[in-house]
Amino acid sequence: MKLSVERSSLLSAIQTVQRAVSTKTTIPILSGIKIAVDQTGLKMTATDLETGIETSLPALLNNDPILQVMEEGAIVLSARYLSEIVRKLPHSSVEIEVKQNYLTVIRSGSSEFNLHGLHAEEFPRLPLIHGNQVFSLPALVLKDLIRQTVPAISTEEIRPVLTGVVMSLKDGQLRFVATDSHRLAQRVASVEAPADLTFSNVIVPGKSLSELGRLLPDNDSLVDVVIADNQILFKMEYTQFYSRLIDGQYPDTSRIIPTSFKTEFRVGSKDLLEAVERAALIARDNDNNVVRLDVKRNLVEISSNSPDVGKVSETLSHGSVSGEELLIAFNAKYLIDALRVIESEEIVIQFTGSMSPFLINQIENPNYLHLILPVRIY
Amino acid sequence: MKLSVERSSLLSAIQTVQRAVSTKTTIPILSGIKIAVDQTGLKMTATDLETGIETSLPALLNNDPILQVMEEGAIVLSARYLSEIVRKLPHSSVEIEVKQNYLTVIRSGSSEFNLHGLHAEEFPRLPLIHGNQVFSLPALVLKDLIRQTVPAISTEEIRPVLTGVVMSLKDGQLRFVATDSHRLAQRVASVEAPADLTFSNVIVPGKSLSELGRLLPDNDSLVDVVIADNQILFKMEYTQFYSRLIDGQYPDTSRIIPTSFKTEFRVGSKDLLEAVERAALIARDNDNNVVRLDVKRNLVEISSNSPDVGKVSETLSHGSVSGEELLIAFNAKYLIDALRVIESEEIVIQFTGSMSPFLINQIENPNYLHLILPVRIY
Repeated sequence: MKLSVERSSLLSAIQTVQRAVSTKTTIPILSGIKIAVDQTGLKMTATDLETGIETSLPALLNNDPILQVMEEGAIVLSARYLSEIVRKLPHSSVEIEVKQNYLTVIRSGSSEFNLHGLHAEEFPRLPLIHGNQVFSLPALVLKDLIRQTVPAISTEEIRPVLTGVVMSLKDGQLRFVATDSHRLAQRVASVEAPADLTFSNVIVPGKSLSELGRLLPDNDSLVDVVIADNQILFKMEYTQFYSRLIDGQYPDTSRIIPTSFKTEFRVGSKDLLEAVERAALIARDNDNNVVRLDVKRNLVEISSNSPDVGKVSETLSHGSVSGEELLIAFNAKYLIDALRVIESEEIVIQFTGSMSPFLINQIENPNYLHLILPVRIY
Repeated sequence: MKLSVERSSLLSAIQTVQRAVSTKTTIPILSGIKIAVDQTGLKMTATDLETGIETSLPALLNNDPILQVMEEGAIVLSARYLSEIVRKLPHSSVEIEVKQNYLTVIRSGSSEFNLHGLHAEEFPRLPLIHGNQVFSLPALVLKDLIRQTVPAISTEEIRPVLTGVVMSLKDGQLRFVATDSHRLAQRVASVEAPADLTFSNVIVPGKSLSELGRLLPDNDSLVDVVIADNQILFKMEYTQFYSRLIDGQYPDTSRIIPTSFKTEFRVGSKDLLEAVERAALIARDNDNNVVRLDVKRNLVEISSNSPDVGKVSETLSHGSVSGEELLIAFNAKYLIDALRVIESEEIVIQFTGSMSPFLINQIENPNYLHLILPVRIY
């Protein structure tokens, strides 16, 4: 294998696949990146067996040659060394040449590195996915779906399905739901899909989705999603992202979302976020980050106290209340998580009682909702 | 105690003294900040008994009232809570009022915090320093003295004096020296001092100097330095920084700095830094971060190897050599530390032999030098 490649393109390909490199593995080859070149260009792969990323550098990008292949071939190189070396190379062009015994020479300017590589044939192959469940959506929309649901996944492994986000599709509406059984986040988006395509209970690990979210471009380019038996594939222009799916049946969450309410409270999302963050400064020192919301006819007060530290209270002046008065307590962290990913400037919080879950809805864009379970305070 | 104060001025005073707050202490009051107000303004103090910082907010700053005192008094409040609360308060003005039992009310906009305070009389007093060894230098020069010597202090407690920087003054020349016995950094600067003021062996803890360095303004305002028996005081416009001194006799380092050389090598400091950083990528995996410098008549090569990872070599093209050829090996980290704090675009490295310390000198500004001991490689 021998090629010459533009340093910045090579570096960005390395940084793309590096997200899938296993950081704590006992299998040495998984800490590496596979590089394969042929006349069409360069392909880079990394996997930790849970997720896999493959990215391509074409020989020509926007008619500019960014890559010149002198000899086809493949090698596996340590991801950590490769990325640090390429980041620091002195020249805008890099030559990579594999010699005997997988010894790989990396040249740039007057600098020459010799790295011990591994046999590319030993690198695990990414799954071949021939799913027939294919649909498409813009990268930015997929990013929002991820950003608005992943914070609500469970971090405890006791119920593995809850560490994932459950996807379903019906009538061209893609739904992401996540819950750790104390709060629930749900986001819906329209996608391009065959009219008869319907699925449910596709559980993607939250960790995989977070990595995918960081990889997705900030634009409206379409991402194709392919679902197979125990794998999911997200196809971007030059990059493919694979993840295994979580086995098991996700609980039915549709019934726990209340539909009628006794109290409604409309408020600016930023005003509320800042007030909850202040209350949380005191709340984090009591047992469960507990803050209280005291919804009265003409004002809403948020408060918290901690015997060792002190207390805090604040009146939310710019909100409007309708319905019954109510005093409710909950974990501040859940409301902060929800408000941080809300796009709408105004939200409505809907309550059915002090001990019932309450709903946070966007006013401008009702495709997102968040549900929080209160805690008992007496 | 009762006052009203501008939030941003209050926050910056808290952030100034917070550097001296003890983060791991068994004495509760040391995790606090003492606030004292009288008609002249507000004074804030923090100490971990090794360093102490006191800062003032005058009632008027540039003729703007930033502070209004309604009732004189003093209180000690948790540094952690105070800084987080003030950072998040909603309004540009803050009211602080101490009530019964040291309960302190902090009001801003519609937000009200109640914090349990501690009795200000129990807060340790900073030392009264009436030194007669007083001199002055611009803040930026003091910052450079610190930045260019502190990286060379020892981090091991076996020889406590080496964890400090030793200061001496003679003929108006202030000298900072630090060494961990593998490398040595020395920086000299002219200061404003009485003609007959001379001292030596004043050993300031490196940790204190690092904190002071972060506190110093980036300008030429004068800092007064007062040295007493076991304390040193740095006086800025509104802030005073105290540190204890380290007991003991600092070794005489003047004799280990060579004065005649067999080989000299002139090079751009940035070119050399980048080349050493590349070599260090491989070197950090061998025993002592060892890189080799091969100084030949017409070229200089820097290289390193690690049996597990591979090797690297690079020719420095823009340097010029005079004197004997030489092969020398050393810890890359020491040269990187030295080159990162050098101001000069060009440096000269002077060698007396493979097993003798070598000197790094700034060409444009000879007030700084760095000495590195080589390692044996065979």
